[in-house]
Amino acid sequence: MDSINVIKVGGGILEDEASTAALLDRFAALPGHKVLVHGGGRSATRIAAQLGVESRMVEGRRITDEPMLRIVTMVYAGLVNKSTVAGLQARGVNALGLCGADMDVIRGHKRPVKDIDYGWVGDIDRVDASMLQKLIDEQVVPVMAPLCHDGKGHMLNTNADTIAREVAAALARYYRVTLTFCFEKPGVLSQPNNDNSVIPHINKALYAQLKADGTISGGMIPKIDNAFAALAAGVENVVITRADNLDGSSGTLIN
Amino acid sequence: MDSINVIKVGGGILEDEASTAALLDRFAALPGHKVLVHGGGRSATRIAAQLGVESRMVEGRRITDEPMLRIVTMVYAGLVNKSTVAGLQARGVNALGLCGADMDVIRGHKRPVKDIDYGWVGDIDRVDASMLQKLIDEQVVPVMAPLCHDGKGHMLNTNADTIAREVAAALARYYRVTLTFCFEKPGVLSQPNNDNSVIPHINKALYAQLKADGTISGGMIPKIDNAFAALAAGVENVVITRADNLDGSSGTLIN
Repeated sequence: MDSINVIKVGGGILEDEASTAALLDRFAALPGHKVLVHGGGRSATRIAAQLGVESRMVEGRRITDEPMLRIVTMVYAGLVNKSTVAGLQARGVNALGLCGADMDVIRGHKRPVKDIDYGWVGDIDRVDASMLQKLIDEQVVPVMAPLCHDGKGHMLNTNADTIAREVAAALARYYRVTLTFCFEKPGVLSQPNNDNSVIPHINKALYAQLKADGTISGGMIPKIDNAFAALAAGVENVVITRADNLDGSSGTLIN
Repeated sequence: MDSINVIKVGGGILEDEASTAALLDRFAALPGHKVLVHGGGRSATRIAAQLGVESRMVEGRRITDEPMLRIVTMVYAGLVNKSTVAGLQARGVNALGLCGADMDVIRGHKRPVKDIDYGWVGDIDRVDASMLQKLIDEQVVPVMAPLCHDGKGHMLNTNADTIAREVAAALARYYRVTLTFCFEKPGVLSQPNNDNSVIPHINKALYAQLKADGTISGGMIPKIDNAFAALAAGVENVVITRADNLDGSSGTLIN
């Protein structure tokens, strides 16, 4: 079985010219099969504001009414995705930009309304990686925008971390998958304000201990839960690191 | 050799909800291999205006400065392309939205400045249909936005008729290609104001005669020249018709 790297970048890395160039250089330098999953929230918020559409967030999730769905479709699958694809092509990477509707790769359903109506936000039902696998074996590098579709003609705004996890899990049928989440810190820190306190390796037992003693708390808990969910679904390794460290030479390895 | 239909739709057909649904129904009903090429100019003009960016056209071509390039990338490759893909998926068509940067399918160069600086407008250098062919043979249906790329990281705004002609020509290596241009009339008319005057068949000799006697003039000449250029490049048939007549049962056949 071949190996593959699924890299999720967020936090505005692909929404700033200098950090985009650096990220694309590093991603292009990664050997072997690879997939890039990106966000685009900051650009969506900026362009929505220019269009007079207000961005409303609840618990970090964007309320996606009809006008906002059109905006995130434009920005994620158009502006951010295709700029990234063109940038990778310029670096010799045979990138292919995709959203979940393309080749029916990611199908989901509109999130049911409980307390909050998120609008056209999707929860994923299934990822079909069979065409991805054929393309990847032809040296194509999928670049995935955070949108799925409902099979009834609607795009659905979908969390990019979730897209990355589900795509990685679906690819685990064909490859040994390492899933890397890039964020603003060099890894999971034992001291939140000390970038030199990266915990190099976390397994289930250590995670339980670090949660119990309060070393890991707050926003890191859903991130690490997401990592263990990926492992449970067949992903071999999860890495949490900073985008300037895509080669995996540091960061936190979770397995 | 299998047959394939390359269908170019323009004139705002995919930019209006009712005509989009009708077009997608008809396109989905077409048997066999197929490719859809679309425009998006009206949406781009509307969204540009909402963003305070003025659309400037010279001889029907959009002057594409940096802000306008971002807008057409969003609108063509994002909004119009992915809405079309999702709509086709809902109709059981395994659509894949592409711009020219995806898998390096269409490479071009920025049009040199002579009298007019068109900005980021591309003239096509080559279409690589090898990956398209592999996908089409897997029953994937490419949906192509009118953008190519320069291989140096820039998207290039490209005329949709030209994209359709060049893609059709590149596919002629693998398939017997029929290229259909949908526009607002039911075909090439012998009397401009009489929709019942469709000329059913035009070949080179008749075209010369119809131009000489003034039956064909004005804006029809570049359209038919484009058709003959496609034929010269290996396309088997070109059809000029209206979008409500995608099955080719009427319209003007050029070969």
